[in-house]
Amino acid sequence: MIWKIGLIGFGNVGQGFTRILAKKREELIRKHNFNFKLIAIADPITGNAYDERGLNLNGIVRQLDLKGNIRDLEGVRKDIDSLFIIKETDVDIIVEVTPTNIETGEPGMTHIKTALEYGKHVVTSNKGPIALAYRELMNLAYRKDVCLRFEGTVMSGTPSLSLAREALAGCEISKIQGIVNGTTNFILTKMEEGMTYSDALKLAQQLGYAETDPTADVEGWDAAVKAVILANTVMDGDITIKDVEREGITKITVDDIKNALSEGYRIKLLAVVEKAEDGIKASVKPTRVALTHPLANIMGVTNALTFTTDHLGEVTLIGPGAGRIETGQAILSDILHIVRLYSI
Amino acid sequence: MIWKIGLIGFGNVGQGFTRILAKKREELIRKHNFNFKLIAIADPITGNAYDERGLNLNGIVRQLDLKGNIRDLEGVRKDIDSLFIIKETDVDIIVEVTPTNIETGEPGMTHIKTALEYGKHVVTSNKGPIALAYRELMNLAYRKDVCLRFEGTVMSGTPSLSLAREALAGCEISKIQGIVNGTTNFILTKMEEGMTYSDALKLAQQLGYAETDPTADVEGWDAAVKAVILANTVMDGDITIKDVEREGITKITVDDIKNALSEGYRIKLLAVVEKAEDGIKASVKPTRVALTHPLANIMGVTNALTFTTDHLGEVTLIGPGAGRIETGQAILSDILHIVRLYSI
Repeated sequence: MIWKIGLIGFGNVGQGFTRILAKKREELIRKHNFNFKLIAIADPITGNAYDERGLNLNGIVRQLDLKGNIRDLEGVRKDIDSLFIIKETDVDIIVEVTPTNIETGEPGMTHIKTALEYGKHVVTSNKGPIALAYRELMNLAYRKDVCLRFEGTVMSGTPSLSLAREALAGCEISKIQGIVNGTTNFILTKMEEGMTYSDALKLAQQLGYAETDPTADVEGWDAAVKAVILANTVMDGDITIKDVEREGITKITVDDIKNALSEGYRIKLLAVVEKAEDGIKASVKPTRVALTHPLANIMGVTNALTFTTDHLGEVTLIGPGAGRIETGQAILSDILHIVRLYSI
Repeated sequence: MIWKIGLIGFGNVGQGFTRILAKKREELIRKHNFNFKLIAIADPITGNAYDERGLNLNGIVRQLDLKGNIRDLEGVRKDIDSLFIIKETDVDIIVEVTPTNIETGEPGMTHIKTALEYGKHVVTSNKGPIALAYRELMNLAYRKDVCLRFEGTVMSGTPSLSLAREALAGCEISKIQGIVNGTTNFILTKMEEGMTYSDALKLAQQLGYAETDPTADVEGWDAAVKAVILANTVMDGDITIKDVEREGITKITVDDIKNALSEGYRIKLLAVVEKAEDGIKASVKPTRVALTHPLANIMGVTNALTFTTDHLGEVTLIGPGAGRIETGQAILSDILHIVRLYSI
């Protein structure tokens, strides 16, 4: 079969994903039996494009290289929007990569719900809807006999959710702990090298790791959202971000870091999700990690998660936690999962 | 459906797998929609058992606790063998966990070939057949429209092959390097603590990590077999164990280890598989690993692999590399993969 893909959101992740598709078409057919057409893209800022015969991927990449958007792309319909793609085309898979809103989940929430109701598979890297409404969305997907996949919501393309949910299937996971925010880990790394907190933050901003308003990272909100996703999607929890005990890194000093090191520990902003007597407990806070533990040696923007299991003890996964190609890879791996399941 | 399982080989791995099945029946049905009967076990030493209605798993576990074998198990047919299970019963999945023979692959090779020819799915932890005949076996499985899975052949239940083959699907993996033999890593760890090589080896033997004849571990044969499996099953290579450049740890001294450390390196028996101009190149040899790399901090019997990819850079997986429950988990996760694929 030829899979028809519709892409909602054409910022960093959508563009990264499209670049991968353009580069790897032949290989995806040959190695993964994944033959596809990208038939539609909708983004109110970077542009819309629709061609039911399949968009010209190389043409799109050229436009991106030239202008950073596809507003001037020729030979395609532009009078469309996200809901048109879901409701009026015969796409098989909706890729939802609009920006995360952790309060309402919108516009992703509406996109994902509508797509599932219309019987489309959904792949997303949008943390909002998954953190806010995982159970409801999965029940809807189950009723409609389609897949909802969201690997890119935690550790970008480093396959933490596939590892926990599929590759470790059969294990009971009693605890997940790790570094799921690269910006704060980068700042802590630079502080260990001697920078003050504010200099390290400025450097992170210059390098594009931190936003102008760094609150979401340095106060632990981003990590807390990922803790919610891990709790609910891997450990069968039912928590919200309000249930996460949360403390950021703004009060950590260079002295704190040096004192910890001299005692054999490194301070990390650790997200921890674990089984407790009354359900799942989650926290995000600066934590002393023994230097002998793999998580202590994760430096810079790298992410890592350690899963505590019954059959295997601790299993640790280390890899990048952000990036347009990295998150594009998450989208692709989710799609290939769906292709495997529905090609038998 | 109710999946019918036949178990060929009832040593450590087969017993570990059976204990998991006995303990987790309810959870496997509820969480994974995996309803099953273990209908047959064949092992010329620890005993045979056949009951087409499904063996009593708790009864088997009691016999194992009592006697370490099932030769006296009552109420079952015992006049069977491995080929009877494959040819004369209606099993859906053959679990092949006989001991590894890296020269002939037997008896696993015959079991796996016959099972695939009879249209049975096969799950194995037996390194011999996979290292010797991966392409032939996969072609046979493809022709018969069944699965051949072998997670337990590398890093036991730590899902290195699922990670590389499924969770990282879409990435190009250009290099795999890591520690895939726990015994030698344990010996090197003890030598860093000051033991001589021969004392460390003796301790490994006392703890059951090393065999009386430790050649397979300390000369790098076991790691080389795993390098072949990684090369052929993950990187599309077509190499044999003779193609692996191999050097063991027997010549490493405590001084070598201390000198390396003082220069910022730790000596590890590293298996490396990488793309070269003329195909896939593989080696196993003591290697200086920079202390800043995750692989340098893998101590004791723990295993780890770092995958170098195009979309994600380096992704590292750390976990146990051996053990009866650990390898039983590998078998279970492979079965659950098959159940997912064939339950849509």
